[in-house]
Amino acid sequence: MSITRVEITPVAFRDPPLLNTVGVHEPFALRAILQVTTDAGVSGLGETYGDQAHLARLHRAADAVLGCDVFNINELRARVAAALAADTTQGGHGMSGMVTGSSTTDRVLSPFDVAALDIQGKLLGRPVSDLLGGAIRTAVDFSGYLFYKWANHPGAAPDSWGEALDPEGIVRQARTMVDTYGFRALKLKGGVFAPDQEVAAIRALRAEFPELPLRLDPNAAWSVETSVEVGTELAGILEYLEDPTPGIPGMAEVRQRVPMPLATNMCVVSFADVAPAVAAGSVDVILSDHHFWGGLRRSQGLASITDTFGLGLSMHSNSHLGISLAAMVHLAAATPNLDYACDTHWPWKEPGEDVIRPGALEIVDGSIAVPTLPGLGIELDEDALQSLHQQYLECGLRSRDDTGYMQSLHPEFEPASPRW
Amino acid sequence: MSITRVEITPVAFRDPPLLNTVGVHEPFALRAILQVTTDAGVSGLGETYGDQAHLARLHRAADAVLGCDVFNINELRARVAAALAADTTQGGHGMSGMVTGSSTTDRVLSPFDVAALDIQGKLLGRPVSDLLGGAIRTAVDFSGYLFYKWANHPGAAPDSWGEALDPEGIVRQARTMVDTYGFRALKLKGGVFAPDQEVAAIRALRAEFPELPLRLDPNAAWSVETSVEVGTELAGILEYLEDPTPGIPGMAEVRQRVPMPLATNMCVVSFADVAPAVAAGSVDVILSDHHFWGGLRRSQGLASITDTFGLGLSMHSNSHLGISLAAMVHLAAATPNLDYACDTHWPWKEPGEDVIRPGALEIVDGSIAVPTLPGLGIELDEDALQSLHQQYLECGLRSRDDTGYMQSLHPEFEPASPRW
Ligand SMILES: [Mg+2]
Ligand SMILES: [Mg+2]
Repeated sequence: MSITRVEITPVAFRDPPLLNTVGVHEPFALRAILQVTTDAGVSGLGETYGDQAHLARLHRAADAVLGCDVFNINELRARVAAALAADTTQGGHGMSGMVTGSSTTDRVLSPFDVAALDIQGKLLGRPVSDLLGGAIRTAVDFSGYLFYKWANHPGAAPDSWGEALDPEGIVRQARTMVDTYGFRALKLKGGVFAPDQEVAAIRALRAEFPELPLRLDPNAAWSVETSVEVGTELAGILEYLEDPTPGIPGMAEVRQRVPMPLATNMCVVSFADVAPAVAAGSVDVILSDHHFWGGLRRSQGLASITDTFGLGLSMHSNSHLGISLAAMVHLAAATPNLDYACDTHWPWKEPGEDVIRPGALEIVDGSIAVPTLPGLGIELDEDALQSLHQQYLECGLRSRDDTGYMQSLHPEFEPASPRW
Repeated sequence: MSITRVEITPVAFRDPPLLNTVGVHEPFALRAILQVTTDAGVSGLGETYGDQAHLARLHRAADAVLGCDVFNINELRARVAAALAADTTQGGHGMSGMVTGSSTTDRVLSPFDVAALDIQGKLLGRPVSDLLGGAIRTAVDFSGYLFYKWANHPGAAPDSWGEALDPEGIVRQARTMVDTYGFRALKLKGGVFAPDQEVAAIRALRAEFPELPLRLDPNAAWSVETSVEVGTELAGILEYLEDPTPGIPGMAEVRQRVPMPLATNMCVVSFADVAPAVAAGSVDVILSDHHFWGGLRRSQGLASITDTFGLGLSMHSNSHLGISLAAMVHLAAATPNLDYACDTHWPWKEPGEDVIRPGALEIVDGSIAVPTLPGLGIELDEDALQSLHQQYLECGLRSRDDTGYMQSLHPEFEPASPRW
């Protein structure tokens, strides 16, 4: 079952003006779609970042994996690593500067791992969750991911979500999320306004949704002292506080002084970060993300680590399409110690824009049923792929740049970590 | 693919009088052979300890896994854990008191995990190594496992290996091992004689085999001070020193004061031991063993951990038959960071005594070719199984007891750790 062809198609899909501490989401989010074909005729799907530097690395890796057995993910990784050994290009992390320390090999390997597992499953007639040890849940819980946002991209009509720039706007957005999708946990992307305003938003959410676990993620926008102040103030209110401050030492200091668990997808983003973070006692919860932890099999290695070291495990997301969502669902289903509802940007996507045929993945009562069809259990929509590729060609964006976009609109904007 | 039947057959096979720090191997080694059958008609094989208390737990687990999908190893583990939750029986670790801290759930799960993977592979037409991520080597290196030994069990004729109670005897034994199997690494089981005699044996091995990596494993027979003395004396000679002294703190102290890596299969024997050992800095190398680390999939979790924390990974063995050897080979083949030749007791077994048909696993040039047939790539010999089961019934042994056997011959013998 050797790989005979890898097609890499960059796509763009519409994205609302979601605010974060480094800027604002551009009008389009970029992704790369991988179609991996084998000599058995069966092909599989992968999805990853669409940044230009990343695309170049994907192409280098694609050449290297031709002829590789799709059952040999260890060899796939070795080939990707070798293909990138001489790589000296910069950037292309797909995270707008918020996560830069992930492993280049693991980041590039990820969509190949997912596609290989999709092919394995199709060949074997088993869902990917089975190849990962078996689903221990039939549905995977997700959290409602709240963002401060503008009513519209400059020059465009307001989107259906409307503006959310204060506690009332956030509560309104949360109400829509909960009513539409049934989420039973909520996360607010913070780091946008001064901490007291974001504390007020969390308090407003708590008042409106007394039963729901709440999380706040300022993406390292705060100093240690500010983090301790906010953490102290939100004692008993947050399920966990996510990346309040930058770096392993800073997180460790905050963790000593706030009562709630600290979670991260910024100070522990690769296997190389784990031992230093454990030694420093920086975090309680690691937010896994198969896009930068080397795919589904290596993400299971991360799960073994968090289980063994008494750490919680949750799941990070950034803007994605249905292939990534399917992969996330299979991984979560087969990970017994996934302790929290996973993050997803899914509701922010236009429902009509995707590269897979609709119906396979629906959020109902805050969770997604684990597909039971062979492989990922999804089907590529070739026409939709071409149309989103056309959109990529026309939109002009080639790398995610939340900061540059913000500065084009507000020239005085400067990213800073910590900002407060 | 649900489990419809589990047959558990205790067997006994002849074992030479191999000496260790807790006593001497009895005339027979005990194992339990699992045959797991599914509603698809396909069955799979597992092998584990044959101690009576372990057999009772295996039967309890066997009842609990009926109806479980063989593709759902996560559920298999949950069922085994539930079945044993109320277990208060003692003993049955299969290690004669040398390893008692392993996880009961993982120890009982192990043969079910192996059998399930064997079935998966047969159903899918793929070797087990593929289900573990793919073989990154076509053959797995093993070390020659040297033992002090008597010429014969009391009352029996001398075995073909003869006596080895001094450096000359050990060198002679090593020469036979190397000439017969081509081993390219040697391990001496120590803790039997005073340290200076074992140091002399290692020096004699170094003189005779200047190129071969050497290991010494006294099974925690030494105090910290003795360990430091021996470690200092054998600087530059040992590839690693295995379990010189008992416990995580003692090992940590020795590790600060000797120049070579320290390895263990005694102070880190379950996932619960890993974090304390990492925090204390007790070891450089963990010797994995799928029999007590919860089978092949969970052993891969251990491999992720050692890789992530900069620890070496090697493989422990105790007396075993061909099903265990096949499982070890597949696991080792699919574990990129397995850094050392694996241990095996294989040469100590009578070649004619096994439960699998001969030919699938041969040690050539010190390594075993990874089977490429579906599943484990081995075949049960029903007649041989029945004959070794008959031997179990007749031999009278029901639990491994190296110490009791030694004391029956030498009433003054007292196990002690540390002894020197
Ligand atoms: Mg985050
Ligand atoms: Mg040992």
